[in-house]
Amino acid sequence: MSSPKQSKPKARLPRGFRDRGAAEIMAEQKMLATIRAVYESYGFEPLETPAFEYTEALGKFLPDVDRPNEGVFSLKDDDEQWMSLRYDLTAPLARHVAANFQNLAKPFRRYQTGTVWRNEKPGPGRFREFTQFDADTVGSASASADAELLMMASDTLEALGLKRGDYIVKLNNRKLLDGVLEASGVALEDRAKRGIVLRAIDKLDRLGVEGVSALLGQGRKDESGDFTKGAGLSPEQAHRILAFVAPDAEDEDAHLRQIGTLVGSSAVGAAGLNELEQIVRLLQASGYGPDRVLFDTGVVRGLDYYTGAVFEAQLTFPIRNEDGDEVVFGSVAGGGRYDDLVARFTGQQVPATGISIGVSRLMSVLASRGLTASAKAPLIVVTVFDKTDAAASFAMAQELRAAGLRAEAYVGNGKMGDQFKYADKRGAAIAVIEGGDERARGEVTLKDLALGAELAKSVESRAEWVANREAQKSVKRGALVTEVKAMLKGRQ
Amino acid sequence: MSSPKQSKPKARLPRGFRDRGAAEIMAEQKMLATIRAVYESYGFEPLETPAFEYTEALGKFLPDVDRPNEGVFSLKDDDEQWMSLRYDLTAPLARHVAANFQNLAKPFRRYQTGTVWRNEKPGPGRFREFTQFDADTVGSASASADAELLMMASDTLEALGLKRGDYIVKLNNRKLLDGVLEASGVALEDRAKRGIVLRAIDKLDRLGVEGVSALLGQGRKDESGDFTKGAGLSPEQAHRILAFVAPDAEDEDAHLRQIGTLVGSSAVGAAGLNELEQIVRLLQASGYGPDRVLFDTGVVRGLDYYTGAVFEAQLTFPIRNEDGDEVVFGSVAGGGRYDDLVARFTGQQVPATGISIGVSRLMSVLASRGLTASAKAPLIVVTVFDKTDAAASFAMAQELRAAGLRAEAYVGNGKMGDQFKYADKRGAAIAVIEGGDERARGEVTLKDLALGAELAKSVESRAEWVANREAQKSVKRGALVTEVKAMLKGRQ
Repeated sequence: MSSPKQSKPKARLPRGFRDRGAAEIMAEQKMLATIRAVYESYGFEPLETPAFEYTEALGKFLPDVDRPNEGVFSLKDDDEQWMSLRYDLTAPLARHVAANFQNLAKPFRRYQTGTVWRNEKPGPGRFREFTQFDADTVGSASASADAELLMMASDTLEALGLKRGDYIVKLNNRKLLDGVLEASGVALEDRAKRGIVLRAIDKLDRLGVEGVSALLGQGRKDESGDFTKGAGLSPEQAHRILAFVAPDAEDEDAHLRQIGTLVGSSAVGAAGLNELEQIVRLLQASGYGPDRVLFDTGVVRGLDYYTGAVFEAQLTFPIRNEDGDEVVFGSVAGGGRYDDLVARFTGQQVPATGISIGVSRLMSVLASRGLTASAKAPLIVVTVFDKTDAAASFAMAQELRAAGLRAEAYVGNGKMGDQFKYADKRGAAIAVIEGGDERARGEVTLKDLALGAELAKSVESRAEWVANREAQKSVKRGALVTEVKAMLKGRQ
Repeated sequence: MSSPKQSKPKARLPRGFRDRGAAEIMAEQKMLATIRAVYESYGFEPLETPAFEYTEALGKFLPDVDRPNEGVFSLKDDDEQWMSLRYDLTAPLARHVAANFQNLAKPFRRYQTGTVWRNEKPGPGRFREFTQFDADTVGSASASADAELLMMASDTLEALGLKRGDYIVKLNNRKLLDGVLEASGVALEDRAKRGIVLRAIDKLDRLGVEGVSALLGQGRKDESGDFTKGAGLSPEQAHRILAFVAPDAEDEDAHLRQIGTLVGSSAVGAAGLNELEQIVRLLQASGYGPDRVLFDTGVVRGLDYYTGAVFEAQLTFPIRNEDGDEVVFGSVAGGGRYDDLVARFTGQQVPATGISIGVSRLMSVLASRGLTASAKAPLIVVTVFDKTDAAASFAMAQELRAAGLRAEAYVGNGKMGDQFKYADKRGAAIAVIEGGDERARGEVTLKDLALGAELAKSVESRAEWVANREAQKSVKRGALVTEVKAMLKGRQ
């Protein structure tokens, strides 16, 4: 255990990593349990894959180089093969399905929650380790599979306490945009141009129609004077795309008719419209109307691998950031249909669709709505008056625990004053004291620590000091559990 | 996503890693929730630390070399500093305590459950990634802290369903052995010799008194002819140590008197006896007698960093291995007092004690006792007769879920035959079918899949085939939930 420099190591964490405390962990546990319960009620079952995968299996080698992408944490195994820590839960799923294809009941529907790692530059609120919660359906090209995920996302957000109207799950289809591009004379094979168009549309919220229009055309100079090269579309082409993503139709039916016109005779566009209509019909028949799941052509999702439906769950209310400013929070979950991931391994296309929840983002949202109230039960600290006889305190803590309460006997070496400070610092609700005289009388003292702290703040006169005494109560030793429960009840 | 060799990547995992399926994950979830509930009832609170730590902070550099120990997974960060994946949860705890010492309520009592990684040679049942569940108390030298952990371990095993008598939590103290060594004339500073003695004693179960005696003396030749060099103790010294670890005393009191004689005038031995007696007294007064927590001088624990009390939870019943042979299972949890870990960072000794559960080992034990019955609720699969109208099936699945059942509408593209095969493969309890004629009559069919499968096994005659029809039942569509519940109840 010696460090190479023989000096004492610093007690610190690498950048972009952090420790997490009880309140956050317990609130997250509760949230994850709720999501799990909804997903399991839909018949999804859990899968776990390891932290490491072969870099090759993750598809994370740099182009034309025998070295992993720097965005993932990678190391060489004993046998000189590169392994990487998973950077999402989708790539491991594709590997799992390819490896076990024959044995899986298909459609294969699994959920997975776990840590993923990104070897990226950390920043405020941006960590290199975080948790995702994914649900995917592999082996079904049916609109039912997409519709089910959208219903499940809506149910999940409501199960977590968000009210209908506080969130919206948005739906779009990549094939529609492809159809509009094709109808505009942009070849579908021109992946580079398609990428520029996708990224431009993704900025609609921030840059508005004019900014996106410039990015679809020759390009755009931003406020700092930097120039971003555009997609090089003609004004007519750009107009067509803008009419698609920022429609001026009066209602959804008119919008769909407009899209029909925009995709024209494009086969892929027609396929997209057909998929979309099937999903929307199923959603509406199941009670998931546009107040829960909404068609929105502005949703494109950044990732290149989506091939059909794309989803995004958003909040409709503003969130205050740490500076107290209202900010648009963006999405808490997203996903879509990807039909090519398994084919990487097998050469065979396997239709798949999935949705991923950003766990810490969703936690922030719930916290801002007061929906992450502590899952901690109130704590009772039984002090130890006579160190040579801790057993009496242990017996009391045991009795309290047996009654379903959270209770501990003090296990340190401190004097009574230290023990009260400890109980305060722990945020304990009640301290139990059994002094020598009390024991002789068959009594113990209960101290209501929360009330005591409240009263102490206003101690300004002798009268108040006396009132403060009410935060303390002598009770019969035999009535310990009953009296503690009564005091806890009085605090609510 | 291109691989360097432009060929398709293989769908496989690095050696020593594995995927885990629903049954195992759900049983483990349930087990972890039970452990968490016991630990939280004792007032322990969760802490999470990241997967990565600086290699320096883990104390995992090789002696005199600027390179990490090969037993841990390590890589260099952007800034050329070595990071390693945690190989246990104790080293990160020490780092956390050292970094946050002033702000922690002390004694600091936390539990942590999480993945740890060992870059070791994998083998059958030996993985390079596994889960630990630790509880530690930092900042208390009191016997209360050790006793509490022992009580908590006993309570946890019983909360998981193990009967008293099926397990035993064993307790020893390193200082007793040190006292015996000192009284035998082995210098406490001779860490190398002490290490050989510890490892020899650890083999008592396997080699017996004679084998250990040889290892304490000049050495031992095993069956294959390999010679292991011994500690080089004299016969008298070896005898004294053997009298300690394999006592011939009639009862515990006689054993303690014997130990008193063996440690003689050794100060460290006397301190060990005193610590042990305090812990045992507290345990006995709290109802944790030798049927739950037992003093056993044979328990030494391999790790070098223990400084006082050492613990080990063992099973008292034999386990059958995969070949059906009865094997001694060894420990499912272990720990002890370590007072030097935080000092690595701060130079200041901080007393600490902890216990760690090997999660997958404990799972195997519970499984062998039938205590990991599936946490899965029975699954209902609602088939889709007419693909253009999946909404009717979704509505039924929704109704069943709203009634608290686990239900899914089939989301694949298969025909009815495929759908039944799917339901079978999923282990579904009931399939729901609404054909065209049935819908006209306002009816649906429930198929008891488990019963059907059972009956199908014995189809030998026409009569039995008719009986088989009883696995199927036509019910009113409006009575779907009631009838499904009744059928599930009948299956129990």
